[in-house]
Amino acid sequence: MRILLTNDDGIHAPGLWEAARALRPLGRVMVCAPDREQSGVGASMTLQIPVRVTPFPAQVEGVEAYTVEGTPADAVIIATEVLWDSPPDLVVSGINQGANLGEDVLLSGTVGGALQGWFRGIPSIAISLCTLNNFIFGPSALVLRLLAQQIGEGSLPRPLLLNVNLPNLPLEKLEGVEVTRLGRRSYAEVVRHGDDGRRKWYWIARSRPVWEVVEGTDVWAVRHHRVSITPLTTDLTAHPLLPALEGVAKALAEGIRVAPD
Amino acid sequence: MRILLTNDDGIHAPGLWEAARALRPLGRVMVCAPDREQSGVGASMTLQIPVRVTPFPAQVEGVEAYTVEGTPADAVIIATEVLWDSPPDLVVSGINQGANLGEDVLLSGTVGGALQGWFRGIPSIAISLCTLNNFIFGPSALVLRLLAQQIGEGSLPRPLLLNVNLPNLPLEKLEGVEVTRLGRRSYAEVVRHGDDGRRKWYWIARSRPVWEVVEGTDVWAVRHHRVSITPLTTDLTAHPLLPALEGVAKALAEGIRVAPD
Amino acid sequence: MRILLTNDDGIHAPGLWEAARALRPLGRVMVCAPDREQSGVGASMTLQIPVRVTPFPAQVEGVEAYTVEGTPADAVIIATEVLWDSPPDLVVSGINQGANLGEDVLLSGTVGGALQGWFRGIPSIAISLCTLNNFIFGPSALVLRLLAQQIGEGSLPRPLLLNVNLPNLPLEKLEGVEVTRLGRRSYAEVVRHGDDGRRKWYWIARSRPVWEVVEGTDVWAVRHHRVSITPLTTDLTAHPLLPALEGVAKALAEGIRVAPD
Amino acid sequence: MRILLTNDDGIHAPGLWEAARALRPLGRVMVCAPDREQSGVGASMTLQIPVRVTPFPAQVEGVEAYTVEGTPADAVIIATEVLWDSPPDLVVSGINQGANLGEDVLLSGTVGGALQGWFRGIPSIAISLCTLNNFIFGPSALVLRLLAQQIGEGSLPRPLLLNVNLPNLPLEKLEGVEVTRLGRRSYAEVVRHGDDGRRKWYWIARSRPVWEVVEGTDVWAVRHHRVSITPLTTDLTAHPLLPALEGVAKALAEGIRVAPD
Repeated sequence: MRILLTNDDGIHAPGLWEAARALRPLGRVMVCAPDREQSGVGASMTLQIPVRVTPFPAQVEGVEAYTVEGTPADAVIIATEVLWDSPPDLVVSGINQGANLGEDVLLSGTVGGALQGWFRGIPSIAISLCTLNNFIFGPSALVLRLLAQQIGEGSLPRPLLLNVNLPNLPLEKLEGVEVTRLGRRSYAEVVRHGDDGRRKWYWIARSRPVWEVVEGTDVWAVRHHRVSITPLTTDLTAHPLLPALEGVAKALAEGIRVAPD
Repeated sequence: MRILLTNDDGIHAPGLWEAARALRPLGRVMVCAPDREQSGVGASMTLQIPVRVTPFPAQVEGVEAYTVEGTPADAVIIATEVLWDSPPDLVVSGINQGANLGEDVLLSGTVGGALQGWFRGIPSIAISLCTLNNFIFGPSALVLRLLAQQIGEGSLPRPLLLNVNLPNLPLEKLEGVEVTRLGRRSYAEVVRHGDDGRRKWYWIARSRPVWEVVEGTDVWAVRHHRVSITPLTTDLTAHPLLPALEGVAKALAEGIRVAPD
Repeated sequence: MRILLTNDDGIHAPGLWEAARALRPLGRVMVCAPDREQSGVGASMTLQIPVRVTPFPAQVEGVEAYTVEGTPADAVIIATEVLWDSPPDLVVSGINQGANLGEDVLLSGTVGGALQGWFRGIPSIAISLCTLNNFIFGPSALVLRLLAQQIGEGSLPRPLLLNVNLPNLPLEKLEGVEVTRLGRRSYAEVVRHGDDGRRKWYWIARSRPVWEVVEGTDVWAVRHHRVSITPLTTDLTAHPLLPALEGVAKALAEGIRVAPD
Repeated sequence: MRILLTNDDGIHAPGLWEAARALRPLGRVMVCAPDREQSGVGASMTLQIPVRVTPFPAQVEGVEAYTVEGTPADAVIIATEVLWDSPPDLVVSGINQGANLGEDVLLSGTVGGALQGWFRGIPSIAISLCTLNNFIFGPSALVLRLLAQQIGEGSLPRPLLLNVNLPNLPLEKLEGVEVTRLGRRSYAEVVRHGDDGRRKWYWIARSRPVWEVVEGTDVWAVRHHRVSITPLTTDLTAHPLLPALEGVAKALAEGIRVAPD
């Protein structure tokens, strides 16, 4: 099995190497990850300028590693299109230090990396540990290896894009595995601002999220000490809204028809 | 009506000012847009460093304008959280020079800007012109003003995030308005690469997309000379896959149970 | 006369356009300047990635203008090597909003731009207004035009790199023009620092400089309400120290000779 | 002895760690270096945004290390002003992979780092190996240690800023140590350019330098298989030109006097 591994915390993050260690026994592992932290970049690709790629001394024996001066999406695009002769069998992004839940997946560099695997028809997993300190990586590493094995055995549906989140608990405290849908959060970035005497600056920070904790969601699962597995798609269409907009379209068409030249 | 306007082509792009001109009669318009082209950045936010904001001489009378040294998402976050006392009634992103169709919306800075309006409960519109040159902005500007009017009158459902695409045609050649779902494309970024004697570089470019042109999709509508209006959501859950994964979850739970300490 | 104009405050800075207005009557003027503020970048060139260049609507009639997404040095290199068929007769950098005095010239983007003219054998002028607000640009514009005229007439020595600083005074309050040497300052950047919960950040700011105000220096001239003109060179050799180091060299040579293999 | 070590090739460069290994026996060594290659940035400081600093696992035992997401100058400013309680006894920048000779020192990130030591009154050394591959670091490491020892013993003049260059030769092929002045080169950066369908790009590269090889210069010394040691200063004044400009000043003063209001 050939596995491409990236993350958005950067190549020095311990979670990345925990993942590499867990996956190494399953086959060939290539790490291709950003050289700097990339939280919040989502699916961002670097199109305006070229991206530098440098071989990196892997922390896990038998693993090949590269850093990219770019985003997780850049890393996966470059690795799959150039660094590897043929597409890998699996793209993994993580283990992220911090949750990637609910609508936040749209802003998540971790998911943004996995997305580029999905776009290429490769089974892809984003995996995150829901804490910002005192990381207990063992259970995430185990879940990742078990999922990768199942994908290798062909026992999972395809195409496949999984978003996995774990509470920061030791194995014996985990209370199960839940297939979930994404939860919702109320947004309110905090923007600090100031002045350096010449120009103003504004510094965006994620606020502490306010989640709607509804049974069946990823947020709910993690709160209840369970591993959350959410299958993702890239169809952002709000299907239920389609009929309601037919009237709008008609009014628009009429507005266009009567517009003065 | 108070309208916040951004884009991802940057504050110098003519499409931005065409939008400002179209919206100005409806009320107060604030332009807050990136100072550099930001194509491909998607929903990316700048969290690691502060963002510089500078007043900019607006090209449309009565409009207040700012540039941000960041992404469209940064622009909308800073404008709604700081520059304006209270949230605007509408967030518009565009008129983009180039299509934003199908799964590409996940990578689109234009949609990434509108998304931050949606997250805050503000009706939001991303609008794009499907060409890379010889832009005919008039019809897009008209459609934008008509939609904004309808939103102002409260005649559209809420919450609302619309992705609008127009073929590059004069008004009289438009053959209607279609409510659509997102199409699918086959991905294959082109990555050129080279060497400067010290290190390698890799330059990512979007390839010419290969679309599945299916009736009812945004791609289909534009190909048939129609205005495409797609309501978006931020629920990326692949709902149809949920049952199929129950077995996976069981196997995982068992794998965790029997794991050696 | 063909004049290339750049600055480090960025293409929107009023001082740049005051310079363009002053120089326009002397011949052809091309503005090529950074799109963002570049204070403190010194002679920095962008070598790792390409630089984007975009035509810009000039604020002065008959002037051709470009922005570069890079440094003042980038702007001058690209303009002289590519944008113009043959080298210009004069490179001007400024009018900078803020002093560039003494050893600070090594850190000055304004001087860094002019330096690239000098390296190519083109007479070059860096010009700065010693204030951070309430700019009185008239006298700087006049001095710049007079100097450019003299260079055009061939009445100045070549090669030539001039660093010009003016106090922020109206013409009638200027008390003369002084040929000066660079002054010395005591350094102490202020570094604020903080933490975002994940990583530390450090923000460097120039402190209020403590100058040794010695007669004959640029600092002294400006303090005494005079225009300061300092001819610069790029020989950083500390010539007076050469003899004192001969003993060091001998000891080193001996150290190398006796080094174990 | 307390030694601060930086470079401009980035924290992964082997030359940096060769220097750390050579200096470690002399006392306490702190490495604070850019996380990415910074060639060509000269004395550039990051003033517009804060700089991220992250602890880094040192490759030499007993050494403390940090990466900065910035320039060599940033690294030295932050380390001396914040990371260390009191200023170090020596700042070293290198061992650079590539020459830093003649007027190029103004563009050199290696020298730019050392300069910030000099500005603070700390003896500072920039050291470079004149090759782009097959690096033989041993002699540079030895020269660095011997110089540091002499500085520690107080046997060198102060203030002190040394620019050291070595030919890429094994110890036994070195033909001496020379105290030199900076050489001169003819400049001609190569600028490749292209187009991505939307905008132009320009990529600057240093051309192969054409040096004036004059006896007594650093270029000459290295060509003759010798270690070159050049004492630097930061006085860029072209002293010999001062008298020649008196006439210019007079003409300017007159021009100002007669200027119309």
